[in-house]
Amino acid sequence: MAKEKEFVKEIADIETDFAQWYTDVVTKTELVDYGPVKGTMVIRPYGYAIWENIQHELDRRFKETGHQNAYFPMFIPYSYLLKEAEHVEGFAPEVALVTHVGDEELAEKLVVRPTSETIICEMYSKWVQSYRDLPLLINQWANVVRWAKTTRPFLRTSEFLWQEGHTLHSSEEEAMEETLKMLNVYEEFSRNVLAMPVLIGQKSEKEKFAGAKATYSMEAMMQDGKSLQAGTTHFFGTNFSAAFDIKYLDKDGTHKNPYQTSWGVSTRLIGALIMAHGDQRGLCLPPYVAPVQAVIIPIAMHKGGVLEKATEIYDTLKNAGIRVKLDDSDASPGWKFNEYEMKGVPVRLELGPRDIENGVVTYTRRDKLGEKFTLPIATLAEELPKLFQDVHDNMYAKAKAFLDSHIKTVQNTAELKEAVDTGNFALGMWCGCRECEDKLKAEMQVTTRNMPFDQTPVGDRCVICGKPAKKKIYFGRAY
Amino acid sequence: MAKEKEFVKEIADIETDFAQWYTDVVTKTELVDYGPVKGTMVIRPYGYAIWENIQHELDRRFKETGHQNAYFPMFIPYSYLLKEAEHVEGFAPEVALVTHVGDEELAEKLVVRPTSETIICEMYSKWVQSYRDLPLLINQWANVVRWAKTTRPFLRTSEFLWQEGHTLHSSEEEAMEETLKMLNVYEEFSRNVLAMPVLIGQKSEKEKFAGAKATYSMEAMMQDGKSLQAGTTHFFGTNFSAAFDIKYLDKDGTHKNPYQTSWGVSTRLIGALIMAHGDQRGLCLPPYVAPVQAVIIPIAMHKGGVLEKATEIYDTLKNAGIRVKLDDSDASPGWKFNEYEMKGVPVRLELGPRDIENGVVTYTRRDKLGEKFTLPIATLAEELPKLFQDVHDNMYAKAKAFLDSHIKTVQNTAELKEAVDTGNFALGMWCGCRECEDKLKAEMQVTTRNMPFDQTPVGDRCVICGKPAKKKIYFGRAY
Repeated sequence: MAKEKEFVKEIADIETDFAQWYTDVVTKTELVDYGPVKGTMVIRPYGYAIWENIQHELDRRFKETGHQNAYFPMFIPYSYLLKEAEHVEGFAPEVALVTHVGDEELAEKLVVRPTSETIICEMYSKWVQSYRDLPLLINQWANVVRWAKTTRPFLRTSEFLWQEGHTLHSSEEEAMEETLKMLNVYEEFSRNVLAMPVLIGQKSEKEKFAGAKATYSMEAMMQDGKSLQAGTTHFFGTNFSAAFDIKYLDKDGTHKNPYQTSWGVSTRLIGALIMAHGDQRGLCLPPYVAPVQAVIIPIAMHKGGVLEKATEIYDTLKNAGIRVKLDDSDASPGWKFNEYEMKGVPVRLELGPRDIENGVVTYTRRDKLGEKFTLPIATLAEELPKLFQDVHDNMYAKAKAFLDSHIKTVQNTAELKEAVDTGNFALGMWCGCRECEDKLKAEMQVTTRNMPFDQTPVGDRCVICGKPAKKKIYFGRAY
Repeated sequence: MAKEKEFVKEIADIETDFAQWYTDVVTKTELVDYGPVKGTMVIRPYGYAIWENIQHELDRRFKETGHQNAYFPMFIPYSYLLKEAEHVEGFAPEVALVTHVGDEELAEKLVVRPTSETIICEMYSKWVQSYRDLPLLINQWANVVRWAKTTRPFLRTSEFLWQEGHTLHSSEEEAMEETLKMLNVYEEFSRNVLAMPVLIGQKSEKEKFAGAKATYSMEAMMQDGKSLQAGTTHFFGTNFSAAFDIKYLDKDGTHKNPYQTSWGVSTRLIGALIMAHGDQRGLCLPPYVAPVQAVIIPIAMHKGGVLEKATEIYDTLKNAGIRVKLDDSDASPGWKFNEYEMKGVPVRLELGPRDIENGVVTYTRRDKLGEKFTLPIATLAEELPKLFQDVHDNMYAKAKAFLDSHIKTVQNTAELKEAVDTGNFALGMWCGCRECEDKLKAEMQVTTRNMPFDQTPVGDRCVICGKPAKKKIYFGRAY
């Protein structure tokens, strides 16, 4: 127990120093390390395996909704950035610029993509000629670069990995339908794969993507009560297609600019799920993205038959498609328990001589530490998937209860401040003015998060200025 | 027939203008397009789907051989490049350099990775402390940048996609075993997935990777008789681990530098398989990487029941895991035949009223155009995978026969020139001197390709200088 306590002590207190807890967890579990260039991260194998699982689940959903993957160059001529006025204003200060190759200076400096609307529009203008070429539904998995002053692994890094969908449509309605469809794909993925409830809705003018007509987001609640924007979808109207002269010949014989969307999620999701589910002992990984779903720990490993049986079970589970690990290292079972609890493995299977005698394994769920259960060895491969679903459901329910109990309806600025200061989202009415948003940001570092689709009023006055309200909106502090 | 001929004419003659044939095929089949920055390419959905299939097959093999994926930052401090003398000499002239972020100049210019040995070694020096940390077996899927003066889609582009494995080992033997193991993984993949025979062996000192002790390659023969280096594996000894001060405490209590390997293949493989298998009608894709393995073309589509039956067959095949497409567009069957032949779809399934009456589909193989066969609809889902294997085997056999018949054993420079000038590889003896390689390159643009593992002599004198020979080696012109 002394050793165990000591072990747990290595992670900062989650209640009193959430920021340090996060840093400790992501580094000590070897999810990530700091890169040599300020603000960059190395995604280590344990972290990258989570990303691979996220990619696999999302990619399947993108293809099921008719999208194809492609790859566009990372280097964008600087002049492209200038074509859409809001876009350049938003991104110019944080773009990395390639000016030289070897000793030679380039004629035009190149932007390392912060996002790919511009270069993709340039290509689409060559590819799209007729209404028959629409809709054009393309996604890209790529690295992007946005220089940031303050960075944190996964949450904000100068380079990160993401996917970006870019679609063209012949009608405004169809483009808006796509924008909302992909928002719903993200929400469903977040719920069913990450076990993470999110609030979906429209961003304010101030908070929308540079160059979009409308931006929608999913906002997740971290355990310190702050919001994390976990994914966005954008409706561009014809802003970019007009700027890049994308035109198609419609059935009526006239040339038109198509309507456009884009949508993306990034390695930020890894940070989100850590802060949504983790606890004092470390990570708590949802089974459908956990790199190891179940770890087998042999007890009295050197007694006859234990390791053989453990290996047999390992093989059976692996063949059943379960991501399973057998730890037959010389470390003590106690050390291993701590290690895999910290690493957030959803289910721990213990197998000792007595278990074998009884034809069972003893198991512990990461989401219900302290309780022990047994399962017959004979049906383990069928029972574990059900157990994973139960772990998932319990994790989601816990996170959902946390979110629901941390949304406070507010009527004025004092209530809003009180709600946010005590670790909640505030839900209230808003006049729709940017001045009120600027005031909140300046006075209490609070931003508008998004406007839910259910706009049933909770008052009739703006909680900031008291003028007649136009919108119901979530307020919060954010990552 | 007039239309068909016209259609075929769009692709340059494969016999007389192989270079233009290649350009026509990759662009007209929409595999790729040119990016706005010189030397960059856009990998379009049909091309990217091939890359996804390549990735899927290779990634499985890497994991089965114990490797894990990770992701390292793309930006490398310039100073890192300087740490290994040969490495900087090889790469410095072609690296893209980031010097500014927005308006601000960076304190140290950053290299956009041309390969990741340096940054990975920097991280490994932090991670590796003990012999227990070895072997360290990591792979990365990433984009890399190497500026090139003359570029061609897939074959040589300023930015390309690849994988790079980077491993550390406690002994020289184990590192060399890894170097050869991964070479064999590449060869097996090339044979069983790309249907492409390759020659494996060691590169000369002149042709090896900048910073390696030894480089091994697989060389594929294109249909113009030129060689394409399709993959390489490198043995570094302790060159980099010493330069980057990677040290581990060994069992004997002393600190040691580990032995290192790296290995990679890239989107170049797509160019390779096009030039290995294509013909006058366009692409001929091996079934295991073809984005569409079988296309269903309804005949007399608007007759009752045809489209219904075609859809039913489509659903059955899709559910069986076959990459199948049903083309129910209004284009004529003849147009569709041409289109999917050009696009290299391995099997075309025709379904008309008479076929339905007979309970069969009529099929044509892309590798045996002109012949028609039938298969019962009832067993199509079981028969097609066998057919794909047969197509694969036939394509491999054809490419192997071509390779075998285009290797000429030579005894002197005149024979070597004759062999290469008539579209062959030359196999001959070599004294081992760089001077002879320089002479061949200068006089006839021929390079040494690699030294086969079977070194049974085919003479005793160097074919270039006539001095006593040390090695048997392949010579050829190369992409």
